[in-house]
Amino acid sequence: MVSLVKHDIKDVKLAPQGKKRIEWAALEMPVIAEIGKRFAREKPLKGKMLAACLHVTAETANLVRVLKAGGATVVVCASNPLSTQDDVAASLVSNFGVATFAIKGEDNVTYYRHLNQALDFKPQLTMDDGADLVARLHQILKRSNPSKQRKGSTLIKKGWEFYGSSEETTTGVIRLRALEREGRLQFPVMAANDSATKHLFDNRYGTGQSTIDGIMRATNVLLAGKTFVVVGYGYCGRGVAMRAEGMGANVVVVEAEAVRALEAAMDGYRVMTMKAAAAVADIVVTVTGDKRAVSLSDMKLMKDGVILANSGHFDVEIDVAGLQKQARKARKVREFVTEYVLSPGKRIYLLAEGRLVNLSVAEGHPPAVMDMSFANQALAAEYLVKNQGKLEKKVYVLPKEIDTMVASLKLKSMGMGVQQLTREQKKYLTSWEEGT
Amino acid sequence: MVSLVKHDIKDVKLAPQGKKRIEWAALEMPVIAEIGKRFAREKPLKGKMLAACLHVTAETANLVRVLKAGGATVVVCASNPLSTQDDVAASLVSNFGVATFAIKGEDNVTYYRHLNQALDFKPQLTMDDGADLVARLHQILKRSNPSKQRKGSTLIKKGWEFYGSSEETTTGVIRLRALEREGRLQFPVMAANDSATKHLFDNRYGTGQSTIDGIMRATNVLLAGKTFVVVGYGYCGRGVAMRAEGMGANVVVVEAEAVRALEAAMDGYRVMTMKAAAAVADIVVTVTGDKRAVSLSDMKLMKDGVILANSGHFDVEIDVAGLQKQARKARKVREFVTEYVLSPGKRIYLLAEGRLVNLSVAEGHPPAVMDMSFANQALAAEYLVKNQGKLEKKVYVLPKEIDTMVASLKLKSMGMGVQQLTREQKKYLTSWEEGT
Amino acid sequence: MVSLVKHDIKDVKLAPQGKKRIEWAALEMPVIAEIGKRFAREKPLKGKMLAACLHVTAETANLVRVLKAGGATVVVCASNPLSTQDDVAASLVSNFGVATFAIKGEDNVTYYRHLNQALDFKPQLTMDDGADLVARLHQILKRSNPSKQRKGSTLIKKGWEFYGSSEETTTGVIRLRALEREGRLQFPVMAANDSATKHLFDNRYGTGQSTIDGIMRATNVLLAGKTFVVVGYGYCGRGVAMRAEGMGANVVVVEAEAVRALEAAMDGYRVMTMKAAAAVADIVVTVTGDKRAVSLSDMKLMKDGVILANSGHFDVEIDVAGLQKQARKARKVREFVTEYVLSPGKRIYLLAEGRLVNLSVAEGHPPAVMDMSFANQALAAEYLVKNQGKLEKKVYVLPKEIDTMVASLKLKSMGMGVQQLTREQKKYLTSWEEGT
Amino acid sequence: MVSLVKHDIKDVKLAPQGKKRIEWAALEMPVIAEIGKRFAREKPLKGKMLAACLHVTAETANLVRVLKAGGATVVVCASNPLSTQDDVAASLVSNFGVATFAIKGEDNVTYYRHLNQALDFKPQLTMDDGADLVARLHQILKRSNPSKQRKGSTLIKKGWEFYGSSEETTTGVIRLRALEREGRLQFPVMAANDSATKHLFDNRYGTGQSTIDGIMRATNVLLAGKTFVVVGYGYCGRGVAMRAEGMGANVVVVEAEAVRALEAAMDGYRVMTMKAAAAVADIVVTVTGDKRAVSLSDMKLMKDGVILANSGHFDVEIDVAGLQKQARKARKVREFVTEYVLSPGKRIYLLAEGRLVNLSVAEGHPPAVMDMSFANQALAAEYLVKNQGKLEKKVYVLPKEIDTMVASLKLKSMGMGVQQLTREQKKYLTSWEEGT
Repeated sequence: MVSLVKHDIKDVKLAPQGKKRIEWAALEMPVIAEIGKRFAREKPLKGKMLAACLHVTAETANLVRVLKAGGATVVVCASNPLSTQDDVAASLVSNFGVATFAIKGEDNVTYYRHLNQALDFKPQLTMDDGADLVARLHQILKRSNPSKQRKGSTLIKKGWEFYGSSEETTTGVIRLRALEREGRLQFPVMAANDSATKHLFDNRYGTGQSTIDGIMRATNVLLAGKTFVVVGYGYCGRGVAMRAEGMGANVVVVEAEAVRALEAAMDGYRVMTMKAAAAVADIVVTVTGDKRAVSLSDMKLMKDGVILANSGHFDVEIDVAGLQKQARKARKVREFVTEYVLSPGKRIYLLAEGRLVNLSVAEGHPPAVMDMSFANQALAAEYLVKNQGKLEKKVYVLPKEIDTMVASLKLKSMGMGVQQLTREQKKYLTSWEEGT
Repeated sequence: MVSLVKHDIKDVKLAPQGKKRIEWAALEMPVIAEIGKRFAREKPLKGKMLAACLHVTAETANLVRVLKAGGATVVVCASNPLSTQDDVAASLVSNFGVATFAIKGEDNVTYYRHLNQALDFKPQLTMDDGADLVARLHQILKRSNPSKQRKGSTLIKKGWEFYGSSEETTTGVIRLRALEREGRLQFPVMAANDSATKHLFDNRYGTGQSTIDGIMRATNVLLAGKTFVVVGYGYCGRGVAMRAEGMGANVVVVEAEAVRALEAAMDGYRVMTMKAAAAVADIVVTVTGDKRAVSLSDMKLMKDGVILANSGHFDVEIDVAGLQKQARKARKVREFVTEYVLSPGKRIYLLAEGRLVNLSVAEGHPPAVMDMSFANQALAAEYLVKNQGKLEKKVYVLPKEIDTMVASLKLKSMGMGVQQLTREQKKYLTSWEEGT
Repeated sequence: MVSLVKHDIKDVKLAPQGKKRIEWAALEMPVIAEIGKRFAREKPLKGKMLAACLHVTAETANLVRVLKAGGATVVVCASNPLSTQDDVAASLVSNFGVATFAIKGEDNVTYYRHLNQALDFKPQLTMDDGADLVARLHQILKRSNPSKQRKGSTLIKKGWEFYGSSEETTTGVIRLRALEREGRLQFPVMAANDSATKHLFDNRYGTGQSTIDGIMRATNVLLAGKTFVVVGYGYCGRGVAMRAEGMGANVVVVEAEAVRALEAAMDGYRVMTMKAAAAVADIVVTVTGDKRAVSLSDMKLMKDGVILANSGHFDVEIDVAGLQKQARKARKVREFVTEYVLSPGKRIYLLAEGRLVNLSVAEGHPPAVMDMSFANQALAAEYLVKNQGKLEKKVYVLPKEIDTMVASLKLKSMGMGVQQLTREQKKYLTSWEEGT
Repeated sequence: MVSLVKHDIKDVKLAPQGKKRIEWAALEMPVIAEIGKRFAREKPLKGKMLAACLHVTAETANLVRVLKAGGATVVVCASNPLSTQDDVAASLVSNFGVATFAIKGEDNVTYYRHLNQALDFKPQLTMDDGADLVARLHQILKRSNPSKQRKGSTLIKKGWEFYGSSEETTTGVIRLRALEREGRLQFPVMAANDSATKHLFDNRYGTGQSTIDGIMRATNVLLAGKTFVVVGYGYCGRGVAMRAEGMGANVVVVEAEAVRALEAAMDGYRVMTMKAAAAVADIVVTVTGDKRAVSLSDMKLMKDGVILANSGHFDVEIDVAGLQKQARKARKVREFVTEYVLSPGKRIYLLAEGRLVNLSVAEGHPPAVMDMSFANQALAAEYLVKNQGKLEKKVYVLPKEIDTMVASLKLKSMGMGVQQLTREQKKYLTSWEEGT
């Protein structure tokens, strides 16, 4: 028997099932496949060590294959204790020889140990989903090198040739921009999240579908005729609202930014404060990126039997702690449904303990969406290597050409065509002298 | 330990889980609950023996509770070998004392034995989902009493006081009407399926949602941007088309009746022949009620990677046998997905072996829909008893008042109100003398 | 100069404009054109005198051309004092030699005189839009022949060979069925309205679009974000609701039948009583077929600036008289908008005086819809002649084959195809013995 | 009789009708009304001369009233020769004492003379819709002061205290940004167009509705079932596509930017090249902002009877000149429809000669949309005055607070509420240290 790469996973014997799962996802990931073919020819990541802190899923495995095809050695750790597909982790280790540290349901200590284990490989590139790996990296730097850190010394100076990182989520980018503003960012970061082909698509179409999927799997309730409250009308919220409406629900939107709230109103939804929405809700979904979007006092206004779910990145959007504290009784009534009795005849049904319902109950973003997100990740890694030395300690957005390339590959795989502009048309678009 | 009622089920120890499931469904079934309260007071089924051949699910269990509340003794058998929820069956036996004959995945022999075991209770009322129990009953009558049968003698004459049956599905009603036409129907049957509150709702909103749910659970593919072919534009097809569109798919309809096809076109869908649709399809769903709606020659025209699913009652709509015969390779790639390789680069993904995808993969109609369907079933049983002796050996539709009652109860539970007409308005609606 | 046929119209010199209008409509009427070609060959109406009491519009003119092609002599009168297109009337007289009696805005006396003038031609076939011509015919019969009428004698016995009539509207069919029930109907009537290709399409797609069109033309208000109340959820109401939602409005439905109300709820709309809806409405449209669907007391609950419109056949759905009586001030603020001030800061904007907003402000059903409705009318006339002597004094629905033919012709003109069933498939649909 | 302000308009006697029209629009413009109340108190434009080159419509008149309320003297000229509402122009002159130079259908010479007449008032602030007034201003400066212009001298140095301008359209902003890039911009310009409350709303909801409105008024064709091609999937294109779908059309999108094209695909539309779309189109609408989006060779591929319309700013999007040159016959068949016969059986119906169909046939953006656009214009003027001396010769976007204020006022007028964030929530949104 061949000896395996380093790993800390549930069970390596799950590999065959994981492999099937990875192959199934591959069917819906034609863009990354196309990039993989080019990477295999050009080897842009040749000899690089790359640590990917991502949800350990079939889609991620397909990204890892492409990175490997490009010449990189890859180590993987989980970006969320609950999202790991143990069979995929096994297949990564067993079929693809990728060092992997991820166990579904791991506790916090294990979670952070896994991050450290990945960093022990001294990666030259990192990928993040929520900026935990980068944060860890900064903490390490701070501790090991407190004086230098103040003077802005870099990882590179420490003999560790570090190209930079790329970030998958809005939440992560917010954290990184905060670091940048405070002058504490230690290397360039590509905000893969900010590519149009990422955030315009996975937040809207991916979160939209998978949230509805998660709610249906968890509850099997009929959505038609329900009053469905979407808290937050960013791209995720739009996606959820659009799909809830598409399933026949009557959608109400709660939003704190006036312009977005007005868009929701013009899109035909009722816009309410959380208090007002609480009183009419059958189902409430939070996608705000903020804390306590649904508070305990909101819950007290809700109807008996209301269903609460969260699709925002962290499990802080619904005040779960408050609910647990206040409830007279709590019991699991279905696999992902906990019933809290606030008072006689006032039952609250919380899905997936307030964690990401689309990832905890359903399977997260469908591969067709991750195809584009991860295309941006792969191209971000290539970009960091190609532009070594030219980039500052800043958060960068990938150039527009990369977006266009990703979108074009996707459209082609769907059998759809983009219109080509004539020279005359291109010129016209930039001219100004022609008037009425 | 108390002795249990007769049964043939998977495992009686599953009862606690089944009970939770039944209670969860009850939350979405306010109409049947309301009827249950009245039945408990009025006991309209007092002393009657009733055999229900239905999908053995949590929703059915809630119907059974209402029938029992009304005074009936109930025996249950499965109407489909694959749809039984074994924990619900256990709970029926253990918690509710209902004789139950149903095991998920039972073979055909067992299936028919279960039907016979239910009939052994000499029911005075039956309920059917697909007319299998009634068909069995007619076969028994024929065999046991060939001479009398010809002369039209009835069950009742044989000393078996039989009130009649009620039928849940379109398919079943078609079979029963054929029997009636041929003069072979032996007792009155209430076509519960034909109540507006049944077929206008479960076929459209129930099948619509649960089919999409089933496809997402089985495949996790992104529906947005997919070309989604719906074969059949009856009420089921409309529901599926509407929800597929609601999830962002581009819907194509195939339909054999010109008027329905035209409605699909006016609803904004492309209408094509199956051949033409085959060539552009990413996903195909059959809901025709007919055989071989997707033939092997259609499949040969399809793109590599196409997904096929059926939501029609029987598993004859996709030519599965033809596919299996022709395929070079077949393997299960996900729990409910079989990959058939027709030729190199031509893979067909068949969901749930061509059986009802909404029931086999997802959980069938959501309880909110079954609430109304089963309200009609309960009221049909009451109607058969109340009108004993007045009904002929025909297929009957429930009176409109029952529909109105069911719909009103449902609306009330949703917090919505129906407008009351004034006397003047009612009169106007029936008058004719007023002109331009 | 050639002498013209008999007529009473606004101005014969408008003919050239009317001709253009008729030709424009013809572009969207491929079904009637196809029937016209056959009629020209087969002459099924040869030698018959036909009186058509219809909205005198470009679409009607295209029907008249087909009837003439079929061999009939046609006389036309208006079925509504306000809907006549005077240029079309002129073209009918001048370009097509059709005796025409219709002037836009004619008073009631003229309106009924025009009906009489049409009947003076002793038609053998009539067509109606609201049953006014048939009602008139029955009044004449009653008066001229009171004794015989009682004994049930027919028009035919009076030496007037009368084949029967056909009726275009729901309202008309209701009136005719009332006559039939009372045993007073004097000849067979084809309920062209009841053909699927008529009422499933013009009520939903025609009234839907043209009502929105009428409201936009009358007011130019943005529909997105408005609370749009649809009173009545029959086919017309569904069409209006669907289109209002399609324009971004938040739709509320008021409905008196529980089953329809529940469908509206499941379609994602809020369902309310008129009182509750009045309080939240920005725009209210009535399509109930009933009186006083919006009463004065409802209006008193409405917000300042509310817009009221009617798309039901008669102008009785909004209590205009009550509004006029109660209002402190009234003035025309745009061509089709009257402002009524109920009290300071409570202004009601009534469109088109409460008459059909789709016909009074916009141009009524688009020709593509009338194409099918009038195909049924033309085929009804042919049917009455072909089945002379076989029909009773009843209201008939056209046979299903005619519906299928009309729908197929339409689909073909749209470049869309109907699926053909195999013999095996047809057989399966009618069989019953095959089970699970 | 009082002497009137300077003007060149159609007929001052049209004023009463214009006044009604202005009042009607005011009902849908609550935001601008609210700003007007504040302006009347604060007089932020006191003593300023302002020239507005805008579509002379009822909505513009309501903006002018607000500017006047703020203390400005206003002179108005048309920004488009065809869009002037002559009765509104009359009311501006007669009822509001505003110098106005605009006649519907004026020729190019008159159009530019009117611009000059407005500039003769030596305005200190200008407003533009397409940048024609600013372009004119720059030409004048160039000619009158060629040496200084090179050195970058400003209007202000010439003794003409000029605060700056604001611009309403995307097209105008593109022209102004080009000027800025070339270093030729002579004063600060507020890109009112770039406010979220402007371009997110009028381009999408305004152009969306009014384009459909224009097409229905021009043609009265049924949209349900039509293949409706939208060329361009920017905000305008999205609006048009969304509303066309909402009316039951089957929408096809043509787009040159891959990311937008992919969004269209994920929104459920078919995406095609113009050539492919031409072959299937029933209706084509251009909203690209580019030249010859529909070329003559595209038209040759189209079906007989296709309808072409443009909703882009300039009438260059459809190759009208090419069509006119190639056509064998051309005739007006309805008020806004010209029939071009390219070859026997190949008729093209062009709406409004290829000019903005929403403005030429319908009434342009509904007032509810212009309410927000013009709120930004009014606040831009205030901003230019308040920030005098602080702004460079650049194109500026209005600060986010102004957007929030406009949106909040609008929501309030719709009876809808924005959620207020707690201090804790605001802090969380900007923090980064909290992790998984």
